[in-house]
Amino acid sequence: MQEPSTKRELSPVRNIRMTVEYDGTSYVGWQYQTNGVSVQEVVEKALMRILGSFVRVTGSGRTDSGVHSRGQVMNFHTTSAIPARGIWRGMLAHLPADIMITAAADVPPDFDARHSACLRWYRFFLLNRDVTPSFGRQYVTHVRGRLDDQRMLAAMEMLSGNHDFSAFRGVACTAVRTRLDLEPIEMSRLPDGILMLDYRGRSFLQNMVRILTGCIVACGAGRMSADELHNMLETGVRSPRATTLAPNGLYLWRVFYGDEPDCPVEAALRHNR
Amino acid sequence: MQEPSTKRELSPVRNIRMTVEYDGTSYVGWQYQTNGVSVQEVVEKALMRILGSFVRVTGSGRTDSGVHSRGQVMNFHTTSAIPARGIWRGMLAHLPADIMITAAADVPPDFDARHSACLRWYRFFLLNRDVTPSFGRQYVTHVRGRLDDQRMLAAMEMLSGNHDFSAFRGVACTAVRTRLDLEPIEMSRLPDGILMLDYRGRSFLQNMVRILTGCIVACGAGRMSADELHNMLETGVRSPRATTLAPNGLYLWRVFYGDEPDCPVEAALRHNR
Repeated sequence: MQEPSTKRELSPVRNIRMTVEYDGTSYVGWQYQTNGVSVQEVVEKALMRILGSFVRVTGSGRTDSGVHSRGQVMNFHTTSAIPARGIWRGMLAHLPADIMITAAADVPPDFDARHSACLRWYRFFLLNRDVTPSFGRQYVTHVRGRLDDQRMLAAMEMLSGNHDFSAFRGVACTAVRTRLDLEPIEMSRLPDGILMLDYRGRSFLQNMVRILTGCIVACGAGRMSADELHNMLETGVRSPRATTLAPNGLYLWRVFYGDEPDCPVEAALRHNR
Repeated sequence: MQEPSTKRELSPVRNIRMTVEYDGTSYVGWQYQTNGVSVQEVVEKALMRILGSFVRVTGSGRTDSGVHSRGQVMNFHTTSAIPARGIWRGMLAHLPADIMITAAADVPPDFDARHSACLRWYRFFLLNRDVTPSFGRQYVTHVRGRLDDQRMLAAMEMLSGNHDFSAFRGVACTAVRTRLDLEPIEMSRLPDGILMLDYRGRSFLQNMVRILTGCIVACGAGRMSADELHNMLETGVRSPRATTLAPNGLYLWRVFYGDEPDCPVEAALRHNR
């Protein structure tokens, strides 16, 4: 009988990227929190069952409690020999119905879901009508009253660009940099009173999209003036009329890493600079 | 003191029309069933609390268990003096969150939500991708595998028009007339693998839209041939490959009464003939 070789080949370290879709209704958000179950925690548990050992995953960013994801991106390192597609398949068998992996691939070692991201895209669906929604209540944020498009567009234009967004973040936000670039906010009116707002930026503060949207809605409803909004940007002090909208209608829609053919060019350039 | 007048004015009988939106997930459908709670039952209970006495409502038609409604129409007769808007408001306070009234108005005495309807429009949302949906699972029917558009369009064309739809109904269907007119079925591909199918017709049989869609999908997937579908129409015998799709993605989208400016003209003409 031959002796087993003492020279063992070290398994190469792989870097695997996955796209994570989830219904945020039952979760405290992507990141670990002490007050409930996070998506990250559930994903790491499923991964452990496939790989046999604990692996820490890196998400592109935290999402607020209750916020949904169509395009959260995460990566992790492993020496497992299971093909990316096999890990994906295995995870799907262990994940609950409200968390799905929609893509999985090996990526270069320097890819980091958080730091490599050059643009995050959030999409907010509002239902603007008198009566509360009967179906899809977890997936749309209900807003009563007439909203003036011109006032909303003016507010959106004022908020887009490079600003100190100190007045537009949750009290628990610990971010050091509050001066951020926001691509032009876009709004579409869909049938049946649905308003769709798109926010794209390199990074966002806690609750920022929900507060921004709360301000745009308050301007549209005539509860907040353009001056008041301007003041918030200038002074960094949040107006009591700047409410944080419910997270039901908010989705982390997509994260860009600069190598996608449809990544907004300016964002990619800024990031690579 | 004056004697009360013995000549009492009889309150006029009013006919009130309402649009009922509902999330069908928790209901056995619109109509009373012995195996669970129906939307009609819940609506009648709320109405009783406002009007003080039981009133029977007439819906435009039953919907299958689990099917949603954006535009179910109902009417009822009452001698109550409460304005339609007041009854509406009162009902909203008594209805559960998954049933809403979105419109209410007095209509002429001969309006009957069921018999006056000249066209019913059902909309079916399918999610065509490998992975099951994580969010909106109650609002879309998941279909795996590649679907060929040309085969689906050919099946849709074959099914549209005047046919005996005996092979396309649930086993419990008791309808006497099975020869029906179906307007041209329409299909749109929306982003993220969503397929939207529109069915418009004067009337439908039990489970009919779900079976028709099951056949169109089976043709698109190559599991059913055009010949087999043709046979079902000719013989009235259902193929074992004609599955009834899950109701999650199906909505009673709108009911036309021929007086709407956007009612398909042919349908209105046929009905008034």
